[in-house]
Amino acid sequence: MTTTKKNAAPLKIIPLGGLDGIGKNMTVFECGSDMVLVDAGLMFPDDSQPGIDLVLPDYTYVLENEDKLRGIIITHGHEDHTGSLPYLLQDLNNKVPIFSSKLTLGFVEGKLSEFRIRAPKFREVNDGSHITLGCMTIDFFSMTHSIPGALGVFIKTPQGTVLHTGDFKLDQTPIDGVRPNYGAITRFAKSGIDLLLSDSTNATVPGFTKSEAEVGPSLYEVIKNAKGRVFVASFSSHIHRLQQICNAARACRRKIVVTGRSMLTNTRVARELGYLDIEEKDLIDAYELSGVPDRQVLVMCTGSQGEPLSALSRMANGEHKTLSIHEGDTVIISATPVPGNEKAVQQVINSLAKLGCDVYDKSRRLVHVSGHGSQEELKLMLAMTHPSYFMPVHGEAVHLRAHAGLARKMGIPDERIFIMDNGDTLEMRDGKVKRGRSVESGVVYVDGLRIGDTDPIVLRDRQKLANDGMVTIVATMSQKHKRIEGVELSARGVSFTIDDEFTADATDAILKMVEKGSFNFTSSGTDALRKAVRDSISNFIWNRTKTRPMIIPVVMEV
Amino acid sequence: MTTTKKNAAPLKIIPLGGLDGIGKNMTVFECGSDMVLVDAGLMFPDDSQPGIDLVLPDYTYVLENEDKLRGIIITHGHEDHTGSLPYLLQDLNNKVPIFSSKLTLGFVEGKLSEFRIRAPKFREVNDGSHITLGCMTIDFFSMTHSIPGALGVFIKTPQGTVLHTGDFKLDQTPIDGVRPNYGAITRFAKSGIDLLLSDSTNATVPGFTKSEAEVGPSLYEVIKNAKGRVFVASFSSHIHRLQQICNAARACRRKIVVTGRSMLTNTRVARELGYLDIEEKDLIDAYELSGVPDRQVLVMCTGSQGEPLSALSRMANGEHKTLSIHEGDTVIISATPVPGNEKAVQQVINSLAKLGCDVYDKSRRLVHVSGHGSQEELKLMLAMTHPSYFMPVHGEAVHLRAHAGLARKMGIPDERIFIMDNGDTLEMRDGKVKRGRSVESGVVYVDGLRIGDTDPIVLRDRQKLANDGMVTIVATMSQKHKRIEGVELSARGVSFTIDDEFTADATDAILKMVEKGSFNFTSSGTDALRKAVRDSISNFIWNRTKTRPMIIPVVMEV
Repeated sequence: MTTTKKNAAPLKIIPLGGLDGIGKNMTVFECGSDMVLVDAGLMFPDDSQPGIDLVLPDYTYVLENEDKLRGIIITHGHEDHTGSLPYLLQDLNNKVPIFSSKLTLGFVEGKLSEFRIRAPKFREVNDGSHITLGCMTIDFFSMTHSIPGALGVFIKTPQGTVLHTGDFKLDQTPIDGVRPNYGAITRFAKSGIDLLLSDSTNATVPGFTKSEAEVGPSLYEVIKNAKGRVFVASFSSHIHRLQQICNAARACRRKIVVTGRSMLTNTRVARELGYLDIEEKDLIDAYELSGVPDRQVLVMCTGSQGEPLSALSRMANGEHKTLSIHEGDTVIISATPVPGNEKAVQQVINSLAKLGCDVYDKSRRLVHVSGHGSQEELKLMLAMTHPSYFMPVHGEAVHLRAHAGLARKMGIPDERIFIMDNGDTLEMRDGKVKRGRSVESGVVYVDGLRIGDTDPIVLRDRQKLANDGMVTIVATMSQKHKRIEGVELSARGVSFTIDDEFTADATDAILKMVEKGSFNFTSSGTDALRKAVRDSISNFIWNRTKTRPMIIPVVMEV
Repeated sequence: MTTTKKNAAPLKIIPLGGLDGIGKNMTVFECGSDMVLVDAGLMFPDDSQPGIDLVLPDYTYVLENEDKLRGIIITHGHEDHTGSLPYLLQDLNNKVPIFSSKLTLGFVEGKLSEFRIRAPKFREVNDGSHITLGCMTIDFFSMTHSIPGALGVFIKTPQGTVLHTGDFKLDQTPIDGVRPNYGAITRFAKSGIDLLLSDSTNATVPGFTKSEAEVGPSLYEVIKNAKGRVFVASFSSHIHRLQQICNAARACRRKIVVTGRSMLTNTRVARELGYLDIEEKDLIDAYELSGVPDRQVLVMCTGSQGEPLSALSRMANGEHKTLSIHEGDTVIISATPVPGNEKAVQQVINSLAKLGCDVYDKSRRLVHVSGHGSQEELKLMLAMTHPSYFMPVHGEAVHLRAHAGLARKMGIPDERIFIMDNGDTLEMRDGKVKRGRSVESGVVYVDGLRIGDTDPIVLRDRQKLANDGMVTIVATMSQKHKRIEGVELSARGVSFTIDDEFTADATDAILKMVEKGSFNFTSSGTDALRKAVRDSISNFIWNRTKTRPMIIPVVMEV
């Protein structure tokens, strides 16, 4: 079993993100004066966060303990595991080494250079790598996921051991032949795993996730039978999918057009690092397509922020600068909609159907499989690791609870299963785990330049503006004559028209309010007048239109 | 075959709604001086229509031809088939008879009375009813759908015949025993169906939709094994589902609490009309629950506008006035999310999971089935009716095209299949169908009191306001001194703070712009100054914050 020290500092395991939804994964492992961070991801905003560009985990705790930070481990190159790195690195005073696989570091390097972060301390690790960070040692083992170079970690500390799966599925036939390292996992299990952290994304899905290799033949079949051009939309980091698309294109004697910024960047990096095999002669630039028959063209496209359909939507609507989709073309959606985007995706599919395209998505052919393990894989992982304690990670509340249910079925008693919130702490002493005190946590919004905790009031205001529009009212008040001299109204996003009659009636309504004595020019201040003006115009608009736009009152004294 | 007159007016078939998505179904049948309307529905708005309450089809064509309108036929009582009736009836000058089944008329009556529309000309029809409206005769036949009293219609005109299925599935074991009238359908087919209009909602779904009767045993199983209270969320118009929920509750000796306005109204109407069988002794009021053990309570809930989860969400968050959901309760979502609401539904499920509830939805047990026929049912309908021409209705572009594909497989040649847009016209003469000239069509938004074609700019402005917030800038200009005297800023929904320093810098920026001579106080007008102020503050904010809020410039002359 593990070496332990009685009465020494416990090992603290602190998830700062990843437990309130799929995204912004970040977990602290802290033991005495040493700290290691596993993943530094971001999340993309949803409808309840209008206008927000990105959502980061609040990593104040990491900054406050920077002197302890020995290294950052990135399990794989998806943005929900890497995306907050540029922000975190800028906020840290010292250069901290970043450990990950070659491809992950390649993707991260591109992102850091966009932020002008120079010469990060990259340390490439692989399946079998063993490193020491302070009092902790870390063993890396290969896992399969929807991106190559995914790694799990086994962390050994003076207080006990933790195995963190990272995101994974158990793919017996991965495209690059790099299987999950079952040998390593069972070896760690034999030496004793005190705590397992395991990916919960698909914990509500029964069965075993299909292998990535099963997608290839379906893609080939659809591409082979296509009469016009073929457009394939996918995630730009899904190198194995892209490899299979390119293989099918080559087999069907189609030239490949790569389009979209992230698709161009990621295919370039993956080719340079040897993860993606496309020959130069199989590629063609979109500008050189004239004269090439439709039957010899395949377009591989994506959009920004993991949304593979924005480029497709632009091409369908004739808004793309070099490519457009026509009747007779075939479109393959080799991806799944990001939650919350289902309707937008359906709208793109409808536009394509109206154009007369043949659209294939996963409901019609096996052109997409998940990168996360389903219930049988999660149980298999629990069986192979047989941990003493279990903490489901990476998922929404319903996924974490479903994963806990699987662990219960596998014989782990309830009191050894920890369903945590971000910022909650587990403490391990001598292999025994209990809850500790929570630390500061939460989310940080990126909106334009600003990085900070955008006030919830700002988001509420934005939703109110979106639903009801706004009216600016400028009331000119004469201090000398103690009266309102004039009213000017302007509105946006309202469904009524403000004409002279409307303004005249509104002015009357405000003057009446003043006459009724609810406002006193002598004793009340400008703030009171502003409030009175706002209330009276709001009531006037409600009575006239049965709508309640946001009112911005401005009082000018003349 | 049908009686036909050469050289007489054609039969025009004009869909005014229902072909651009699931909702606002409305189809005109016009032959010479006679017109019949089938359905008058509405659609609920989506994210791209912020702040809109309802979407109606533009029925200008009906109003312009009111003198021909002999009757309105409603196929069933869902709001996407009945919801624009109150608006249409108010816009018509005369009282037009409305034909439908007893339950549909019961539901419509409640809605019309909310609009204070008194004594509508209701004409109850049933399976087998035969009516004459001008030169047209209409035969009604029963169909199965997710609401009782659904009817299809067979329309006979001097120019030929049309069969309109309405919304349907082919349920061999409906809860009320009222099967689709296959005998009538094949009889019409034998007499000759020139044109078929058929429901396309599930045209992309393979197989045969499961019977409503299969839901009952699953509901019973879950309710029987529940330890605490059971909450079932469903659609309030789905009377057969409610019947099965109540049967299961009774079998498990649970009292039934009915909550939510539409659920209370619809169960009352359905019980009065004999469509729903619940005994008074099995019901209990939410206020009388104290003292009743949790194991003896079942709550049947819904929200407004066909959204069964709003009440559930309030109960989970402690915002419901009489009921709250606790750890140990079981929640059954006996419904499917309205498209676009998938993420909101997932959030409710997460809240419930966090509370410690056991949540069942259709991914976990058979607690919901669709009310629309899948591909095998649609092909069966085509086989039974063997029409000369076919027009798929009720669906998005992708559904209409998939349905057309099924018709092609069934042997209907491409040139006899019409994929139409709202406002397109088919003309039938002597049983032959071709496209005619399109009529005015589109959508009408209901937003507060106003009913009109809310300007697309309004919706764009609302989305801009939601994404970027807004800044009002009031610049005071002295005509006498030819200069800007002061600037006042106020903002909403922006992520930066406007303090004195910000305002001072912004004022400087505007004054600089003026000094640079891009604006001339003597020769330019107020509009030009307003534009100059807007541009300069917009640039200032972009440079400072990298955001672009909407700018509302107001120039006051003093």
